[in-house]
Amino acid sequence: MVHPSRIVMRMADQARTDRTRLRRKPARGSHDFATIAAICDEALVCHIAFTSPHGPVVIPTTFVRTGEQLYVHGSAASRMLETLAEGGAACIAITLLDALVLAKTALHHSANYRSVVAFGCGREVTDKAEKHAALAALLDKIEPGRSRACRPPNDKELAATMVIAFPLAEASAKTRTGGPLPDDPEDTHLPYWAGTIPIVTTRGSRIAA
Amino acid sequence: MVHPSRIVMRMADQARTDRTRLRRKPARGSHDFATIAAICDEALVCHIAFTSPHGPVVIPTTFVRTGEQLYVHGSAASRMLETLAEGGAACIAITLLDALVLAKTALHHSANYRSVVAFGCGREVTDKAEKHAALAALLDKIEPGRSRACRPPNDKELAATMVIAFPLAEASAKTRTGGPLPDDPEDTHLPYWAGTIPIVTTRGSRIAA
Repeated sequence: MVHPSRIVMRMADQARTDRTRLRRKPARGSHDFATIAAICDEALVCHIAFTSPHGPVVIPTTFVRTGEQLYVHGSAASRMLETLAEGGAACIAITLLDALVLAKTALHHSANYRSVVAFGCGREVTDKAEKHAALAALLDKIEPGRSRACRPPNDKELAATMVIAFPLAEASAKTRTGGPLPDDPEDTHLPYWAGTIPIVTTRGSRIAA
Repeated sequence: MVHPSRIVMRMADQARTDRTRLRRKPARGSHDFATIAAICDEALVCHIAFTSPHGPVVIPTTFVRTGEQLYVHGSAASRMLETLAEGGAACIAITLLDALVLAKTALHHSANYRSVVAFGCGREVTDKAEKHAALAALLDKIEPGRSRACRPPNDKELAATMVIAFPLAEASAKTRTGGPLPDDPEDTHLPYWAGTIPIVTTRGSRIAA
């Protein structure tokens, strides 16, 4: 039986607030910035929650981390970006699913994952140099050096694109690794298979247009 | 140049409301139930947004679709599930990233994806038969037949587990497929590579505990 090895709580690099206090399974949690940054850098998609007049909304989008900030971009007509630009409270989740965990009992089935949840308010990036840098970072996340291997945005394109910066100041990470939890003594004799099924995300062969 | 082939809007099986009206790139959208169901059935993780006293929160979790309902589960002590059980408004996003799309110009870089966004209110599943069925469906999504290849939850375990049903009634799908958008005439001569990089998610070899 492989016992789950979980991240040990370390000194907080990131602010621990009432919002980022880990309520469920805090032993899986971390406020360590290097842990948070690594998850952000591996994930290609984040989910942004904000409050609309109709209630909570969550939308997926690509993103990039630069230092302690996340950048997202899109059309200047996007409702989500508009809400973020106005400084409304938002929450961003970044999730990597690593494995499915199968146990002898239904209850102990689980998933291995690495996730970040960040709370804060967006800021519209209006400084031209920062905007160009954020868009270049988004391209270079797709493929290193890509921002220099395509035509950069011209002024008209730059104006039609909104870039939002979002702070990673109030963020936490949660990680589960390893196999299923140990069975209760009365379950160890059960004949069922237990272990993990890795979920593997890879890049396939490039397809030219 | 492969032109993007996008889902054509079909007759709405699911309710089109002001919330599910597709604001951005409606040509990529669909309210077709089969499209929505297929995305739900392939994805292993969803992101649930709800409103807390501190503002919007989004949390990743596993889920399963049965008919026109999504089921999520967790500890009865979970704040998210408690909020959903109380019937608070929520929004669930389900996202599959299929490819990164590289164009000759920075602006036309994109991503191929299939996503669902559903709005509604949760309902705590208290009926024992429905609760057992939902938990079995969650297990069978991990691996077909898994609910019969492990010890089912006993009464104590069932009581400690909260199951929430969430309707797919007010939901929409959004899909992008294909290569980059055609270049503007003044960009076609640019020497840069354009095309797609598939993102492939597979199950690795099982690791016994």
